[in-house]
This record gives sequence, structure tokens and C-alpha cells, in this order.
Amino acid sequence: MSQTPITIPARRGKAARVAHGQTVRIINTHGEQVVDTWAFNAADIGEFMSMEHSRAGMLHLTPHVGDTLLTNRRRPILTLVEDTAGNVHDTLIAACDRWRYEGLGCTEYHDNCQDNLFQGLSELGLTPPEVPSPLNLFMNIPWTPSGGISFDPPVSTPGCYVVLRAEMDLVIAFSACPQDILPINGRAGKPTEAHFVVS
Amino acid sequence: MSQTPITIPARRGKAARVAHGQTVRIINTHGEQVVDTWAFNAADIGEFMSMEHSRAGMLHLTPHVGDTLLTNRRRPILTLVEDTAGNVHDTLIAACDRWRYEGLGCTEYHDNCQDNLFQGLSELGLTPPEVPSPLNLFMNIPWTPSGGISFDPPVSTPGCYVVLRAEMDLVIAFSACPQDILPINGRAGKPTEAHFVVS
Repeated sequence: MSQTPITIPARRGKAARVAHGQTVRIINTHGEQVVDTWAFNAADIGEFMSMEHSRAGMLHLTPHVGDTLLTNRRRPILTLVEDTAGNVHDTLIAACDRWRYEGLGCTEYHDNCQDNLFQGLSELGLTPPEVPSPLNLFMNIPWTPSGGISFDPPVSTPGCYVVLRAEMDLVIAFSACPQDILPINGRAGKPTEAHFVVS
Repeated sequence: MSQTPITIPARRGKAARVAHGQTVRIINTHGEQVVDTWAFNAADIGEFMSMEHSRAGMLHLTPHVGDTLLTNRRRPILTLVEDTAGNVHDTLIAACDRWRYEGLGCTEYHDNCQDNLFQGLSELGLTPPEVPSPLNLFMNIPWTPSGGISFDPPVSTPGCYVVLRAEMDLVIAFSACPQDILPINGRAGKPTEAHFVVS
């Protein structure tokens, strides 16, 4: 059991093992930073947190405190137990990837959350079987009554955090989103590090 | 080129090859029937229609006429060109699967859309690399301003349809959803066949 904050470096990924019953506090250290989050069953990486299964169970577009996120086999994997970020998170949008940045006009390699998932897990000797749709903590994607959605600037403040409780032994993976073209990490376009504590 | 209606048998899957530029008319023959829909690049089954990538491109929770659905590599794969079902479709909810029915109390095997995807594709000699989140045609999952969602009875009428245009050579797969416990296919709990025409 560790209480030492672990750094998710700016524009990079980081993963860690979490035991059933432990909690993970994800801290938006400098504010305005989106943190893409994935979780995999430690005993079988083919089972993982799934946004489309979680929505069917939570009956919410984004997790509220007390909601449990489900795997692609409909089993509880993480519960949101605390949230000081005003419940502004996203389950709708894919991780950014190289094709996203090509579409935004980049002609050279751009850091991206999909590659960060692979990089973070590779440090634990793991390779994900696919790229699940992430839980995008602190990401501001509002919806309208007619179903319009938009990529809005963040409302997360420095030091705000969420706490997730592990409902099985799992591997959690994060990406400090490197998006600096859209204002999703703030209008300054300066993605930052974030931190997490497993306890 | 075929104009003959193809049957998606009640509670079963069906797949077909569609050439770039062809259209697929999916007909809710008897009304009230949800049709889970997937599409795969015919040249590389590892590229497929992705709801989380499509929402990021469409900027809508559900496709509107004129919206293009994207693959997991952000390329256009299908465009919604006509819709007589009142734009009531879903991109939020996973295909039903055996774990879903176990959770709903079934103690014996229940037909499910996930297995129907595999069955439909297997008839073409194909195996999907994973189970993408489906485009759930005619499925009524409304959302509230605070982000609540619900599984509501269908509003689709007999003979209503959507037309999708193929933006690449693709394989399209359908499941006539066998859900008969929740009212998503109507309060009678009697899933029916549906049909599609490739032209």
C-alpha cells in the first residue's frame, strides 16, 4: 500500500496495479487538465472498464458519486466515491490518437492518449487487447436537449480530485491528455502533469 | 447490386458486403424493433465503425441526417442519408450479451446481440477482432439535462426505415435485438424480424 503521489507526466501515460478495495485519488494538480482513464482486470486484461456497458448500468451519461463503472462483462470494476470537480467528466469521446491530430492539421507526430495507454501499460509489461473508450476525467463535453455536444474549455480548478474505489484487483492506466489544439485542456494550450495516490 | 430485401431473422444476426457508394435501407418491418448495427472495413476488419469516434466527429449524441459515422481510425464509413424513424436511435449503450441477461435473472442461455454479431459475420467467413459499441437503430434511450438516461419503449412504426450510404467498401452486420425482458422492443416483449436492401 502506497500513499506516495505518482506523477502522470505532462503529455504522457502512467499505469499502476491496484488491489480490490484500495482507492485511487486522481488529482488535477494544476487544474484544467484532462486525464483519460482506463482500467483492466489484473487477472485477465481481456476484461476492462467499458463506457458503453457502464452507461447501461449507471443510467447516467457521466458517473455521479456512488455510481459503479462496469467491465465489458458487466462486472463492477471502479466506483466513484468522491468528486470535487463538479461532476464534469466525459464518457462519450474516444481517446485522441494520431488520426485525430492528422485531422486537426498536424503533419508530424503528436503525442496522443491512445499511444500513452500503450506506453503506460508497457512499463508494467502489459499490452491492451484493444483501446477501450476511456473515462475522460475533468473533460468538459456538455450536451444539449437535442443531442448536440461540444468540446468546451475545462472548469477544473488546481487541486481538485476524484476518488475511485477498486471493485476487483485491477490495473489502472492514465494519460495526461496532450491536446493543445482544441481548448479542452484550457485556452492556453499548455497540457500539464497530474498525480494520483493509491491507498 | 441487389435490390432484394434481405431478412434479419427475429433474435438473430445477418451480415452483408456493401460496396463504396452503395446504400443500405434498414426497414423496421413490423415496427418497434431495435436493430444493432456494425460496419467493418472490407479490406481490414481491424478498422470498424466506432461510436466514440463518431460522436467526436458528428458532435451529436445520435446521428442526424447528413452526419457521417467514423471508424476507429477517424475515416468516414457510413453516412445517414434518410431517416423516417424520427431520429430516435442510440449510440450510448453496449450490445446486449450473455452477462446482461444473467444480470436480468436469466439462468439459461438467452439470444443476444453480441453473439448475433459473431453469428452474422461467421456466415461470411469473418470474425470480428472485438465487439465495437453498436449503432442501435430505432432504440429509444432519451437523456435529461442532468445526464440521466433510460431504456424507453420504442416509438418506431411499421415500415419506418433509415438509409445509410457506404463511404468505403465495407461489411455491415445487424442483429434484430432479442431483448424481451426490458420494453426496448415494445411492451409486448416480442422481438421480430427486420429487413434491409442494398442498392
